[in-house]
Amino acid sequence: DYFVDYLPEQRVVKTTAATVDLDSETFVRADQVCEWRSPEQLKELLDLELRDGGESESKILQRCRDAIRYSVKTTHPHFFNQLYAGMEPYSLVASFIVEALKPSLYTYEVAPVFTLMEDAVLRKMIEMIGWEEGGDGIFNAGGSMSNMYAVNLARYHHFPDIKEAGLSAVPRLVMFTSQECHYSISKAAALMGIGTKNVYMVPSDNRNSLCVCVQGAVPFMVNATAGTTVLGAFDPIQEIADICEKYNLWLHVDACWGGAALMSNKHQHLLKGIHRANSVAWNPHKMLMACLQCSAFLVRDKTNLLQRCHSSSASYLFQQDKFYDVSYDTGDKSVQCSRKPDAFKFWLMWKALGTGELEERVDRALATARYLAEEIKRREGFRLVMEPEYANVCFWYSPPSLRNLPDGPELWKKLHTVAPVVKERMMKKGSMMVGYQPHRDKANFFRMIVISPQASRLDMDFVLDEIHNLGKDL
Amino acid sequence: DYFVDYLPEQRVVKTTAATVDLDSETFVRADQVCEWRSPEQLKELLDLELRDGGESESKILQRCRDAIRYSVKTTHPHFFNQLYAGMEPYSLVASFIVEALKPSLYTYEVAPVFTLMEDAVLRKMIEMIGWEEGGDGIFNAGGSMSNMYAVNLARYHHFPDIKEAGLSAVPRLVMFTSQECHYSISKAAALMGIGTKNVYMVPSDNRNSLCVCVQGAVPFMVNATAGTTVLGAFDPIQEIADICEKYNLWLHVDACWGGAALMSNKHQHLLKGIHRANSVAWNPHKMLMACLQCSAFLVRDKTNLLQRCHSSSASYLFQQDKFYDVSYDTGDKSVQCSRKPDAFKFWLMWKALGTGELEERVDRALATARYLAEEIKRREGFRLVMEPEYANVCFWYSPPSLRNLPDGPELWKKLHTVAPVVKERMMKKGSMMVGYQPHRDKANFFRMIVISPQASRLDMDFVLDEIHNLGKDL
Ligand SMILES: Cc1ncc(COP(=O)(O)O)c(C=O)c1O
Ligand SMILES: Cc1ncc(COP(=O)(O)O)c(C=O)c1O
Repeated sequence: DYFVDYLPEQRVVKTTAATVDLDSETFVRADQVCEWRSPEQLKELLDLELRDGGESESKILQRCRDAIRYSVKTTHPHFFNQLYAGMEPYSLVASFIVEALKPSLYTYEVAPVFTLMEDAVLRKMIEMIGWEEGGDGIFNAGGSMSNMYAVNLARYHHFPDIKEAGLSAVPRLVMFTSQECHYSISKAAALMGIGTKNVYMVPSDNRNSLCVCVQGAVPFMVNATAGTTVLGAFDPIQEIADICEKYNLWLHVDACWGGAALMSNKHQHLLKGIHRANSVAWNPHKMLMACLQCSAFLVRDKTNLLQRCHSSSASYLFQQDKFYDVSYDTGDKSVQCSRKPDAFKFWLMWKALGTGELEERVDRALATARYLAEEIKRREGFRLVMEPEYANVCFWYSPPSLRNLPDGPELWKKLHTVAPVVKERMMKKGSMMVGYQPHRDKANFFRMIVISPQASRLDMDFVLDEIHNLGKDL
Repeated sequence: DYFVDYLPEQRVVKTTAATVDLDSETFVRADQVCEWRSPEQLKELLDLELRDGGESESKILQRCRDAIRYSVKTTHPHFFNQLYAGMEPYSLVASFIVEALKPSLYTYEVAPVFTLMEDAVLRKMIEMIGWEEGGDGIFNAGGSMSNMYAVNLARYHHFPDIKEAGLSAVPRLVMFTSQECHYSISKAAALMGIGTKNVYMVPSDNRNSLCVCVQGAVPFMVNATAGTTVLGAFDPIQEIADICEKYNLWLHVDACWGGAALMSNKHQHLLKGIHRANSVAWNPHKMLMACLQCSAFLVRDKTNLLQRCHSSSASYLFQQDKFYDVSYDTGDKSVQCSRKPDAFKFWLMWKALGTGELEERVDRALATARYLAEEIKRREGFRLVMEPEYANVCFWYSPPSLRNLPDGPELWKKLHTVAPVVKERMMKKGSMMVGYQPHRDKANFFRMIVISPQASRLDMDFVLDEIHNLGKDL
């Protein structure tokens, strides 16, 4: 059986300091997803204080066991709370190797293998995006950072003087994004001195407002989201690309979450037109299950824009009189200095599984999500927020006491309070983790994220049964 | 013997996918630091291409072995090339646990243990800085990011409107830094729309130029460096703090490298006055040998400035109707979304070793660096660039052919070419790695970084002998 085989049989981490049997503590399916403790309780249990004297190895081993015990098992098949989940053992092996080797990715000299692997992975991702003439890229500490890179490159592309002179040398800049974008777009605008007010949120049903002129300000980019965080919706890239071409705006596609669909012949239509983007953010640590973090920023440019935008040419690191071709030193493409070789975690699993298996996994996850949506439609008391386009299945649960109330503010006010209580109960029981949130004018609803090939249709049934069991008395 | 005991005896990473015996491949002292291959050769050896089909487990195991074989052994006792080195096994255990548990640090709900551990480590670091009334902080993906946070906080503190309105709403901002600062300060200024031209580099010998008025521009912060990257020098914090108080400027201390001296009663005087800083960046992954990355940003403020500056209050993550105290959700203090629990890698080793052992290690490293400096003064053909203040020992090596040349441009031009050749030869031999660089008007010199308690006086002798052996014919 695929789901059982998938779990590695032996997972033991040993050093003289500690022997941690990961199997018994973290991965057994029968175990709880979490063993909830309040912050106050957990502080008591963990004895967090750091002291002058050290502790014995057996005590440290116990501390490791406690840390594992009270941590959430995000690799458990009943963890559906975030846009990552599940355990890819090949990726984990790569992580262990990286941790033990302690490399930092800025010069070829100190990280030759990982420099080349990053390059190979980026080139393959660029091929899947469809940039036939190639491109450039870099792995970052998270998709938020990739989105920030996009904003900086777009800005630098239009106004290269900003790097030296700062924003006081240019008119007010504004950027556009679809309303459902990830919050990292605003965070980037705040950090980068653009200002959150200058991020124009375009409602999904009125894309023409993109062209609205903004008095005295200069638009420079559009962010489109391929796979939104809450609803899993895809902005129409073709349509947005037409507008960007017309107005000479940089098009960035935040495909952190939805990028995985590019692996699938069946689902890649969701990102139709992505080859027209100037830059793309894509996180293999989400749907593709690489270990955290694994986030690529990709750019179509072939003029070394990434490096020109970010370089500072530190002479202690990027000496030009080295004995090898220093174009392999990638550090000046980054705003980081030390940088982890995250691409290796994706390279090794891709090598082991092949594109074919990655495609199958994406198809399987989306089929499971589809199954869940159909079940929700079938079951009394459950209601979809929208038909899922991707692996996010958003829905309300009404306990029997609310089922006969007429639709109206009264009902929604009551429904709004259901999800937080069900969430509290599932956490305290430890049976599963499913997120909930309000969204715009919508009352709190559950958001199920289906990623891992370990999660089966039986697990979907389990989730719906469990929500009902936990909430039916409300 | 301390140095031998220090090496863990058993280091085996096992999963069904691969069994990697780290001992035999990476850690044996007798092995080479690196097995140099040019990019072209290495590409041939590694078969980097990603294909539709997967590969067998035995092939993947071979790929892991190759990745390890051709990677630089930064944990080898003869690796002196960067500001990190050596292997702390407790920290490695913590890394493995983190990788296997796959946590992300934004809400207490998904990372309860690591949230509390981060808090405990930050509080202890704040205590060591001497902020008696406490403070706030966050671990980041590198010290460069911490420095960026400092710039953003300083700016927001003076001009809170920038977050929404952007820089076009304020006059031109300028910041000061000592000339020897890390390049991440300029990178931050570029990314944040301040502009590199508005970073005023203050020469170390003319600190009064800080007070120079900058026409039409508003100074808002000073960056002081405690432990500079190349020379290991310490800016006089007390003196700079006086100026900052006088002119109402935010004082940030970049102690990424030098912060470790706070652990030592003997050496903490190097950072005298650090308690007067508004913010501090301090990387335990450097001198304190926590696994990469482990970088803290600390801020004296107690008004939640960090969160106010960076928050975007995403409702899908930071719901306010949760069943626990949501002040434990730290995600909105960050510009990242997913964030690794790096503090745990420091917490576990600190717990195991105690502050006492950390202090001893710092003292030992600095004593070893001192020994090296004395040896350099004793040996013919070696010359210190400056008396070391810290663990950086910078020096020139003259082969016999240059020893009788008169001091002058001719000599320096020739000396400039020595280090790159010696470096090439040590890499190709794989016997050790020591960095070199030019610096301002100074010709290429070696920079030895002494960190690991595994590096002994014998190793210092080895380095000098080896440089002579590799370069004596030049
Ligand atoms: C659409 C989208 N973009 C970007 C991000 C940010 O990715 P990261 O958490 O790696 O910073 C997320 C995170 O969930 C996301 O959903
Ligand atoms: C003084 C100083 N500050 C900051 C940094 C940046 O740290 P990181 O490499 O973690 O970004 C360095 C790196 O060497 C440094 O030497």
